[in-house]
Parts: sequence; structure tokens; C-alpha cells
Amino acid sequence: MNGFEDKLWLRVRYSETDQMGTFYNSRVLEWFECARSEIMRKLGIPYVEMEARGFFLPLIEAHVAYQGRARYDDLLELTTRVAFEGRARLRCEVTIVQAESRRPVASGHTIHAFTTHEGRPQRPPAWFIGLVEGKLTAPPPLRA
Amino acid sequence: MNGFEDKLWLRVRYSETDQMGTFYNSRVLEWFECARSEIMRKLGIPYVEMEARGFFLPLIEAHVAYQGRARYDDLLELTTRVAFEGRARLRCEVTIVQAESRRPVASGHTIHAFTTHEGRPQRPPAWFIGLVEGKLTAPPPLRA
Amino acid sequence: MNGFEDKLWLRVRYSETDQMGTFYNSRVLEWFECARSEIMRKLGIPYVEMEARGFFLPLIEAHVAYQGRARYDDLLELTTRVAFEGRARLRCEVTIVQAESRRPVASGHTIHAFTTHEGRPQRPPAWFIGLVEGKLTAPPPLRA
Amino acid sequence: MNGFEDKLWLRVRYSETDQMGTFYNSRVLEWFECARSEIMRKLGIPYVEMEARGFFLPLIEAHVAYQGRARYDDLLELTTRVAFEGRARLRCEVTIVQAESRRPVASGHTIHAFTTHEGRPQRPPAWFIGLVEGKLTAPPPLRA
Repeated sequence: MNGFEDKLWLRVRYSETDQMGTFYNSRVLEWFECARSEIMRKLGIPYVEMEARGFFLPLIEAHVAYQGRARYDDLLELTTRVAFEGRARLRCEVTIVQAESRRPVASGHTIHAFTTHEGRPQRPPAWFIGLVEGKLTAPPPLRA
Repeated sequence: MNGFEDKLWLRVRYSETDQMGTFYNSRVLEWFECARSEIMRKLGIPYVEMEARGFFLPLIEAHVAYQGRARYDDLLELTTRVAFEGRARLRCEVTIVQAESRRPVASGHTIHAFTTHEGRPQRPPAWFIGLVEGKLTAPPPLRA
Repeated sequence: MNGFEDKLWLRVRYSETDQMGTFYNSRVLEWFECARSEIMRKLGIPYVEMEARGFFLPLIEAHVAYQGRARYDDLLELTTRVAFEGRARLRCEVTIVQAESRRPVASGHTIHAFTTHEGRPQRPPAWFIGLVEGKLTAPPPLRA
Repeated sequence: MNGFEDKLWLRVRYSETDQMGTFYNSRVLEWFECARSEIMRKLGIPYVEMEARGFFLPLIEAHVAYQGRARYDDLLELTTRVAFEGRARLRCEVTIVQAESRRPVASGHTIHAFTTHEGRPQRPPAWFIGLVEGKLTAPPPLRA
């Protein structure tokens, strides 16, 4: 998978644990979201700016493999990779490990459509393709 | 406190527990929200209709006293009471007990402003006051 | 897929929405959990009893396809099916539709291991296999 | 209020927003928890170590005043202050502002008991009092 890669570190919050003593399973999708937020910022287009420009990236698919435990306050390392899947879908792969022991915690991916605010499909703009493929470092200025 | 009273039952979800083996503290505010949703429906004006009519009820204050444990799958009983606090604020009191043992779990209140979608304060409409005070059972029809 | 089927209805909570105006993506995994809780109860073995008997069912995989919107207070219908995948894994498939319009919202599955409290793999007990395959309606009594 | 003060910065996650376009109200209690985690670390006793030493700090009260909006990806600054309330309760005050504009977002406090793992009240240890009052910088070593 080509594309753009980024890393992020975060600590497991108490609110993210459950009575089994590890993180509750749905939190992984929230951490994937944090990973996407940061990789978009690194790409040069924070997701808030995407939305301001009229591009929304709703999930159409999510997949998670649970590999190990993570307890409250554990420091996790997330490695994120984003690339196109076909011409109109974005694929985001995330791998989560314990930052110190390197033990795997979870990995998976999300697939995103490009839509308008109302949810209608639209093509990704050329500048966004350029950012993901490393041919651009910033989007064109927003006209006022 | 005058006003309107309602009851609701819900079970503690696994996602609402934490590693201490009881519910995580912020869930109580989510349960309070469920309680408000149901009491609004019983009042005759589901909260979605409030928003459709241009009235928003953002929280301006929340208070919770934590009184006892509740584990995954425990059945909780919520008693809700809604009343005006002054002329432009709504106060919602909720008491949560274990449905079977009647042991207290948490109690508290939220205070809500009346605002427009943009967050500007506005007066509660006369029909809403009528519903809360038990003088009306339904809002006037929405003009198309 | 053979196995046992169940239905559950729930309303989208305000806390489950996000700024796009629909449910936030990770909530689907929480709803899947609610669906599993109910199907276990219908099977004759509430999940709390599974844990009390020393059987834990941690997720090893989750997959979600997002198909449509669901707004605050929408009534959702969840259809759940549970069956064995091989001899030591449980597969739980859930389909979520808008209860009134029947429009699809999300569908997917989770795969679960059988472990001890400490997370060591163990075989599912014969009585559990009997419940899932419809050959039993209750587990054997728990010895004190 | 005497005691110990700390600062923490965090960004609003997409999962923390709701359909009103601002953060969902219960998230404030989760952010308060993050603030407590960090101030405990700065005090010299990460909360995981407190639990490892047999001291639990369950909430007995929470209060939040909601003062302003915070949108997805906004950078928030949390100022935390921890002090004793009487001899056996800890009070944690948190103020949240927009990091750039300094606009208030929310403020409030939580009050915590000292309990055993089973939830029985116990006195805070002398070393913990020393840490909060700034007379110690680290707890005594844990005996193996």
C-alpha cells in the first residue's frame, strides 16, 4: 500500500477501560479517528478544513483485529497509513502497539467515501490526491 | 419542586463499565439524557420536535452525587422530574436506583437554557410552559 | 449460518450522535454489544452468568459496514445471529435497520474467543454448545 | 483552595462532538479524568500506582458549569487543582478554556473518597497528604 504514513501516541483513558480490565472494544475506532485527525494535519489539510471546503469522509467500512490488552494509562503507539482505494475511496490502516513493550494491541482499517455535507458522493479534489501521493504539501488557498 | 414526573428503566451496558467493575462516572450524564428524552416524549413534545421548532435546550449546569455501584446488566430505575427554574431555565432532576434492591446508585440534576440553533437565548414558548405545568397535553400543530 | 437468532430495538441516544448529525461510527460496536447481551439472555445464559461460571468472550475481530444514517431518537431494529465458527470461536452477526422505514443502517459481525478471566484460551463447555445449537434451553445449575 | 496545580492540553475528538456541533456534555467528566491522571503523575504518584498500593479514589460528587462551545479539533487548556476537603476527601477543580482565544468552555469539580478495592472507606496515607501539600515529591518505595 502506497500513500502517506504518520505516528501518534496516546494514553488509555480510565473511561476507555471496561470491567474486564482492558480497553473496551469500541474505543479502537475512536483511536483510529484520532490517528486520522493527526495524519490529515500532517498531510497539510486538517479534517476541519476538509469539511470547511465541503468534503466529508464518512466511514463506509471498519475492520478491527484485537491482538492484546491495554490497561488504563498504558502508552500506545499508533502507526497510520492513508492511501486511495480506487479513485473515490480513502483507505486508512492503523496499527496499535504498546509503546514500550512493542506488544500488539489492535490493528485494522477504515474505508471512507467522499461526500458533500448532505451525504451525496463526490470525487476527491485533485489537490487532495496530490497531498496523499506526496506531490503537494498544502492545499490551494480557500477563496473567501 | 412542582412539574412533571416520569420513570424509565435501562440496563447498564458493558461499554459503560470501567476497570473498577462499576459504571464509569460520566455515564450518569448520558443516562440523565435518556431520562430527559423520555420525559419530553411523555410531556407530548419529543426533543427532536423541540429542535424542529427551533428550540434548543443546552446544558448550563450538571450535578451528580454518586451513591452506589451498578454493574454490567444491572437493571436501573430512573425517576425524572422536570420543572422551570425561573422563567427561562429548565431544571431536570433524576434519581437512579437499582430496580430490584432499590439501592441508590446516583442522583443529580441538569439545568438547561432555551436557545436558538445558533445558541442565542430565547424565551420558552407559552405552549411548552403549559406542557410542563400540566395545562396542555400537546403542542400546537407545526405550520408547514 | 446456523445458530440462534434474536431481535432487539433501541433508540439512538443524543450522546451517540456526532457533528455530522448521524451516529458516531464506534457506537455500532456498542449496539452490537447490546445485541449480544440480549441474545445471550434469550439463549438462557446471560453474559454475567457466563463470567460467573468462568467463561469470558473477548472480541478478536470486528467488522462493520456502514449503510445509512440514523439520527438522535430514531428507533433501530437489530437482528442478531450467533453461531460457532470452528470449535472454539463464536461468531455474532448483527444487522441494523431503521425500525419504521426498514432502511439499512449498518451490519457486521464480531468474532469471540473463549477464555478464562486471565485471558487464557479454553474450550466452550458442552452445555453452551447445546444452547447455541438449540439442543438445550438452560445451562446446568451452578454448584455453590 | 490550597494544594497542587497542573495544566494539560487536549484536542476535542470527533467522537466527543454531538449533533449540536459542540462537545457532548458528558465528555467534560472524561476530560476531568484526564486532568486528574496528569496531576497525579505530576504529584509523583500516577493513579495506577495508587491502585497498585490499594488506594482507590471513586467519585462521590461531580459538578460542571457549561460556559461555551468547543468544536472538533479545538485545542483546550485544562487547569487542575487538587486539595483535601476535610481529612478523607480529595477535591479536584478543573477549568477548561479554549487554548488560543482563552474563552471559557467549562469548569467544575469532582470530590473523591479514599477506599479499598472493595469500596470500603479508608484514610489517605500520610505520604499522599505530603505529596498534595508539597512536602514530599515521591511516595515511599513499594515493598515487594
